[in-house]
Amino acid sequence: MQRTSLEHMNCSVARSLDVVGEWWTLMIVRDVFMGMHRFEEIRRDLGISKKVLTDRLATLVERGVLKKVDGDHGHSEYRLTRKGADLHDVIVAVMQWGDRWEAPNGAPRELVHECGNVTTARFVCDCCGGDVTAFNVSSKSGPGMKKKRSAK
Amino acid sequence: MQRTSLEHMNCSVARSLDVVGEWWTLMIVRDVFMGMHRFEEIRRDLGISKKVLTDRLATLVERGVLKKVDGDHGHSEYRLTRKGADLHDVIVAVMQWGDRWEAPNGAPRELVHECGNVTTARFVCDCCGGDVTAFNVSSKSGPGMKKKRSAK
Repeated sequence: MQRTSLEHMNCSVARSLDVVGEWWTLMIVRDVFMGMHRFEEIRRDLGISKKVLTDRLATLVERGVLKKVDGDHGHSEYRLTRKGADLHDVIVAVMQWGDRWEAPNGAPRELVHECGNVTTARFVCDCCGGDVTAFNVSSKSGPGMKKKRSAK
Repeated sequence: MQRTSLEHMNCSVARSLDVVGEWWTLMIVRDVFMGMHRFEEIRRDLGISKKVLTDRLATLVERGVLKKVDGDHGHSEYRLTRKGADLHDVIVAVMQWGDRWEAPNGAPRELVHECGNVTTARFVCDCCGGDVTAFNVSSKSGPGMKKKRSAK
């Protein structure tokens, strides 16, 4: 198991990965998105040990991605918080990349949009509506960037 | 280090994570997107050991995400393949989630779209152009789903 934390890095990719960048973590979130809410459902689906799943669920609750609620018949259930539901773009982006590059027999699952069609989601700019791709964006320091000390 | 492979799971999230779901791997890809192409540049930026970076770069080349090319002055450089450049959506989705939920001082970096504005990318449906969110899509089995054997 990896112990190094990326939390100290002043980068939103690093900080996100510190929460969800470990294999089982994002797979658990995927399962909850797909409607699996109980410990045993998730454990069976992923085929992982009780210990690993217990650890990962505790981390996800602690970091505010999932909440544990009382379900039917005395079972606890895990539900997405708003922070957790907001991981939808990450799951979709990872899934679509896998569909394109790691699915020789075609996509195992397809997304159906409310418009009724099987959809491939594409990123567009919230200002102009144009496609956002690797080839038409650049990046610059934002408000959360620590200023480097200038040499004296 | 985790040894269990997710490759056998018939799910594009799992298969993607098997390639890029480990912390350093996606951070390396991010660095190459940001214009760092040499071993020493990436190692300094991430502050990781030579051994870890050597291992991760070898995996990324082997899995077709990066290619190693001859650069100036006899230095090797790492460049994104098409498969690697196609990870842009994943990096953007992970970054934006971190900006919203793990960046109390604001986004460390901002994306600037070719339209000239700082942008937040949002997913839209490639059929109707409407937003794709956790609340307006469902999923169904696709062509790559293995059929479950029916009970006799």
